[in-house]
Amino acid sequence: MAAGSTPGTAPPPIRLGMVGGGEGAFIGAVHRYAARLDGDYALVAGALAATPEKARRSGLALGLAEDRIYDDYAHMAVAEAARPDGIEAVAIVTPNHLHAPVATAFLQAGIHVICDKPVTATAAEAQALRDLVERSGLVFALTHNYTGYAMVRHARQMVQDGALGRIRVVQVEYPQDWLAEPIERSGNKQADWRADPARAGAGGCIGDIGTHALQLAEFVSGQQATAICAELTSFVDGRLLDDNAQVMLRYSDGARGTLWASQVAPGHANDLRLRIYGSSGGIEWRQQQPDELLWSPLGQPTQIIRRGTPAANAAAARVSRLPGGHPEGYIEAFGTLYREIADHLRAARARGQAKAPRDSHFPTVADGLRGLQFVEAAVASSRAGGCWVTMPA
Amino acid sequence: MAAGSTPGTAPPPIRLGMVGGGEGAFIGAVHRYAARLDGDYALVAGALAATPEKARRSGLALGLAEDRIYDDYAHMAVAEAARPDGIEAVAIVTPNHLHAPVATAFLQAGIHVICDKPVTATAAEAQALRDLVERSGLVFALTHNYTGYAMVRHARQMVQDGALGRIRVVQVEYPQDWLAEPIERSGNKQADWRADPARAGAGGCIGDIGTHALQLAEFVSGQQATAICAELTSFVDGRLLDDNAQVMLRYSDGARGTLWASQVAPGHANDLRLRIYGSSGGIEWRQQQPDELLWSPLGQPTQIIRRGTPAANAAAARVSRLPGGHPEGYIEAFGTLYREIADHLRAARARGQAKAPRDSHFPTVADGLRGLQFVEAAVASSRAGGCWVTMPA
Amino acid sequence: MAAGSTPGTAPPPIRLGMVGGGEGAFIGAVHRYAARLDGDYALVAGALAATPEKARRSGLALGLAEDRIYDDYAHMAVAEAARPDGIEAVAIVTPNHLHAPVATAFLQAGIHVICDKPVTATAAEAQALRDLVERSGLVFALTHNYTGYAMVRHARQMVQDGALGRIRVVQVEYPQDWLAEPIERSGNKQADWRADPARAGAGGCIGDIGTHALQLAEFVSGQQATAICAELTSFVDGRLLDDNAQVMLRYSDGARGTLWASQVAPGHANDLRLRIYGSSGGIEWRQQQPDELLWSPLGQPTQIIRRGTPAANAAAARVSRLPGGHPEGYIEAFGTLYREIADHLRAARARGQAKAPRDSHFPTVADGLRGLQFVEAAVASSRAGGCWVTMPA
Amino acid sequence: MAAGSTPGTAPPPIRLGMVGGGEGAFIGAVHRYAARLDGDYALVAGALAATPEKARRSGLALGLAEDRIYDDYAHMAVAEAARPDGIEAVAIVTPNHLHAPVATAFLQAGIHVICDKPVTATAAEAQALRDLVERSGLVFALTHNYTGYAMVRHARQMVQDGALGRIRVVQVEYPQDWLAEPIERSGNKQADWRADPARAGAGGCIGDIGTHALQLAEFVSGQQATAICAELTSFVDGRLLDDNAQVMLRYSDGARGTLWASQVAPGHANDLRLRIYGSSGGIEWRQQQPDELLWSPLGQPTQIIRRGTPAANAAAARVSRLPGGHPEGYIEAFGTLYREIADHLRAARARGQAKAPRDSHFPTVADGLRGLQFVEAAVASSRAGGCWVTMPA
Repeated sequence: MAAGSTPGTAPPPIRLGMVGGGEGAFIGAVHRYAARLDGDYALVAGALAATPEKARRSGLALGLAEDRIYDDYAHMAVAEAARPDGIEAVAIVTPNHLHAPVATAFLQAGIHVICDKPVTATAAEAQALRDLVERSGLVFALTHNYTGYAMVRHARQMVQDGALGRIRVVQVEYPQDWLAEPIERSGNKQADWRADPARAGAGGCIGDIGTHALQLAEFVSGQQATAICAELTSFVDGRLLDDNAQVMLRYSDGARGTLWASQVAPGHANDLRLRIYGSSGGIEWRQQQPDELLWSPLGQPTQIIRRGTPAANAAAARVSRLPGGHPEGYIEAFGTLYREIADHLRAARARGQAKAPRDSHFPTVADGLRGLQFVEAAVASSRAGGCWVTMPA
Repeated sequence: MAAGSTPGTAPPPIRLGMVGGGEGAFIGAVHRYAARLDGDYALVAGALAATPEKARRSGLALGLAEDRIYDDYAHMAVAEAARPDGIEAVAIVTPNHLHAPVATAFLQAGIHVICDKPVTATAAEAQALRDLVERSGLVFALTHNYTGYAMVRHARQMVQDGALGRIRVVQVEYPQDWLAEPIERSGNKQADWRADPARAGAGGCIGDIGTHALQLAEFVSGQQATAICAELTSFVDGRLLDDNAQVMLRYSDGARGTLWASQVAPGHANDLRLRIYGSSGGIEWRQQQPDELLWSPLGQPTQIIRRGTPAANAAAARVSRLPGGHPEGYIEAFGTLYREIADHLRAARARGQAKAPRDSHFPTVADGLRGLQFVEAAVASSRAGGCWVTMPA
Repeated sequence: MAAGSTPGTAPPPIRLGMVGGGEGAFIGAVHRYAARLDGDYALVAGALAATPEKARRSGLALGLAEDRIYDDYAHMAVAEAARPDGIEAVAIVTPNHLHAPVATAFLQAGIHVICDKPVTATAAEAQALRDLVERSGLVFALTHNYTGYAMVRHARQMVQDGALGRIRVVQVEYPQDWLAEPIERSGNKQADWRADPARAGAGGCIGDIGTHALQLAEFVSGQQATAICAELTSFVDGRLLDDNAQVMLRYSDGARGTLWASQVAPGHANDLRLRIYGSSGGIEWRQQQPDELLWSPLGQPTQIIRRGTPAANAAAARVSRLPGGHPEGYIEAFGTLYREIADHLRAARARGQAKAPRDSHFPTVADGLRGLQFVEAAVASSRAGGCWVTMPA
Repeated sequence: MAAGSTPGTAPPPIRLGMVGGGEGAFIGAVHRYAARLDGDYALVAGALAATPEKARRSGLALGLAEDRIYDDYAHMAVAEAARPDGIEAVAIVTPNHLHAPVATAFLQAGIHVICDKPVTATAAEAQALRDLVERSGLVFALTHNYTGYAMVRHARQMVQDGALGRIRVVQVEYPQDWLAEPIERSGNKQADWRADPARAGAGGCIGDIGTHALQLAEFVSGQQATAICAELTSFVDGRLLDDNAQVMLRYSDGARGTLWASQVAPGHANDLRLRIYGSSGGIEWRQQQPDELLWSPLGQPTQIIRRGTPAANAAAARVSRLPGGHPEGYIEAFGTLYREIADHLRAARARGQAKAPRDSHFPTVADGLRGLQFVEAAVASSRAGGCWVTMPA
């Protein structure tokens, strides 16, 4: 099916499947909002839940055709690959421990993958998956969605343009409060698997949100963490995984910083915040007020740079949908990743290869591998009593 | 076409047409984002621009079939009404002066209408349109989109529940800065028609954004403005319509307040803000930070109530898509109106009448009429040198 | 007594008396903090309370010598004028209705006056007092203390320097919440006299805080209100004076604005806020966060200008005591007026005339007169149903 | 000299001397504001500068009698001790390296000491000084001034009352930006000695402001740091002492936290901020907005508790001078320490011993010792490559 046969005509939407994300799921719904927002995708198939009955109910509620509602992902991968109108990409929104096997199945079937984070349970698995992605030539997008915010893009561009001078300090934090009590023991579905090492992996809070924080810090600062010293704690009685993580980091060009992730910090719903200080100025961005970036050129007043205004740079403007003062939020940022992924997928359609036609920044399996390496380094550091551990380059 | 024939199955999307909103339009794009967000609509037809060439280009870019791209709205109304798969509703996003004739054409063709504000150019036209809507039995939704925000709904519910006690003071303001210079004379499309009395109507700023402010104040406070005293000013040299409006208002139950709307206030992008004070407490909501509502119970600390948290009431929760700390914005609020409209339209499908299956709050032609009455009263007051003018009940 | 006889030697402190401000008084204590802060004054005499017993107790607690604790102000004025070490200035901090007679007594005794606002009960009295001040050649300072804030001075200087261009809109508001209930009927001393027309004058809220708001707006904007339209309301049952005031204003150079003062606005402790918009930019200042000024040059990001940083201008720096980030507050601003008054008083000592040696800005009897004119105009406008009333030039 | 001989009569002010704090000094001026604010002290003697000429000039400008302007502190201690009207207490505001010898001289002369921090250059010196203080029975107050803020007191009381439950996480940070460039090499007096190990001690930023942060964290949380892991960095080329400090801390009851102090963080003037999270709620306080405390009871909305309102607890009310909405700042907090010290000094006068008559909280030589121990632990940890170091109990 050739896209864009008539110049100026909208290409047909990308045929999308979904694994996970059935009734009551949070992140599956977010992926669907994101996929719909710009009209680039059509959701046409799914293995949405763990039981056939729930999978069917969820599929019908989403308007899927009966024959494209699957009981299991493996069958879905094979069946969709065999259809002429089969899905071009799959969104994986299952609990963490299934990310790797599901992704593998679809990649092997020749289907592009959009995967929620973390990419796998261990760095070793992530490495294997990365190799598979490379061999396949397929797109593998990892939805570290915070990179989709316009003012995050603005900040990154500022750093690249040298506005901050030499980077000295990177402070990133990601406090939440929803696990301040042992809700995993009272049936909360979101909490249940996150607190279970078998399904969440070796890291609790550090894996669930600490990886977002590191990815954002590296994405914006352009620096890589080279060594870390971590203290992981489980404050809630009986909890098996960490619910609070303190990390000190050394960055590639000599910068220093801390990363704090917590799920037991009352007053913080989802309060990811990044501050970067260089020799010429500092920036601050807060996810709960995403349309603003504070920019403090050294010796001058702090400026409030708003998305959608003339002060927003080209990197921000490229991913902005609305004028200033008309708030964009979480779905829009997530949707920006989906839009950039769509660009790649259409390029893959047209030219038979996954190459982006424009300056896209969605994270990939490589970011996923790095996240797992970070979790494993943090766990190792913490278990050793808080020593410094080298991060892979 | 019967909706919901299989229980639990998603009804087919509502077939939507659009008039206006071609290349480069702002509000047309917003309506499309809003219509897509929840998957309730499919855009299948349009008369998107004033010239055939641009209309065709815009239609193709949006993936419309060639035979459903129209040159003029009148033809579209008739042609779509005649198709078995014709549109069920039309979104009208043209410049203001076309709202009334377009709406009339589609209503006469038996097609539901979603219309951007203001509903017409004059109150007399609005009254006529209201009568037509009533006779038709069709849905007529007016997109005063700010009523779609979750914390606006929360605030309204609080007032209704008596949390504020007797309402005393209502302060609403809507400053912007984009017309601080005469950009209508240098080719800005958005500014061009807004500054032209022939296309915008008798009010400039008072009509464009002052009506939003009044509608929000009345919607949340549950009070009606009974008399107003207005001072409309054109600060930019040569501008024909007001770009700043100061209004004092008397409300139905004895409350007093001011309304300030301005398009010449540097530093404000789209800074709609509402504060209501009663005998038991006060609330403050700001569109640029829409997920928060400040609630000050008399004699106690101010609370920051956040959307998506346990503190948000049922009215907020009903229109909330994401958990707390995951910002929702302008598109989501706009989308909430579209979702509530969809509920009505589906009810109309099923039962042959436009009755909402749940507690919906989208504005209608009646709100449009009231807005025009407000503009006309403000203009009359201001021309008379700032005397008090009675508002219709 | 000659000041500064040895170059570089500190002049002896100004001998200060006080009328009012005994036990339990708020504003008297503030005047004493302000007088002490820079070491420019020594409080040496007082008629601090209405009863001899309380006056004596209050005087002793403040360390006054027994023979300089007076039962009544008239006696104090005469006695102090007769002493070689008599007071040079008196601070008047009684309830409003005594300001005029006390000030008159001390002026007639040749003693400089520092008077809390309002200066008198009526504009006619204020005019008479102004004439007396002029004839006397004495200093008469009125403590509209908000003009003492560094960033208020900064803002004023910016306007004078033309940074805002032509002034278009002046929005000033002063909401409080402490009179939201009828506390004047349950023994609150501060509320008691403020709610009594015989002691507070014709205006309630408009006089108590509305005059501060107007004075600040005119001081910073450099514009004079030429006509006003007011709506004064008493929301609390049985209250005799207004507790909420809405005013629209026309300013001298064509600017427009509103003034809102309220003592029934839950959530606002003392929330004076001023916003001024010109053709080139806008500023915002808020008394509850006084070290910051928001400056929005048209088309550029809003800047947060902080007191004590290089971005603060000379007018701010002149009245700043601490480096940036070390908060100054209400007492410091009040103290700045006292310091500027001290400069005048010392100049008067040295050269026998009250002429300021530097760029001082403390308000005088003329500001007091203007405040009364404003109150009377507002009351007249409101009583006439909200018509426009001309303000004296 | 007996204080308070007549009941209700103000005791004579405490006779205060000062060492350091001559022309151009910052902290000396602050101590004088603080001493004046409540009228508890009279500055009557001083050795204000390093050279006789400057000492004399500074003394005269402050109104000191010629015979009480001293060239050196040792002479001053002896001479004042010999006078019947000699100073009762001395304020030490010299560069750091002189704190110990000056304090020693005055303690040996039987004079109470108010000393700026750090108390000495090394922990060993601090221990010796502490022993001397204990033997002397004199008051030794250390001006960790941030403990004087009303809402800091409020927060501490909340923790003590158990409102936060079990403390889990303590995040404290103190960023500044004034040393982002090597201004110590261009004659900045404040920067000069702070960047010189001989005068500032082993710690740069960690000693100058990191100690304030630790003291505040421990003061409010009621927890003691038991072990720390620190990374001290000098980002500015050629700087000999650290200008950025990252520290992870383990607290006595199992809490974890980080401390970040920086003098190279553009956009932060003096941005001390403390956040404490317990099992039942979290608090946040920021020095640049000191009248507010954010309180987030778990599962409920965040509250903004303001100084001077009914919501402020007794500990806050006790040290509050003004009603809510009338900002108090740095000088007021500093003045609160001076007032509490004065209470002790007067008790010492009356009963011959330094015992506080009320619930005072000013820091002492013990806090000073702890600060030095912290600096030395941090330096040791950092030099060892960032290992965990035990803190003395």
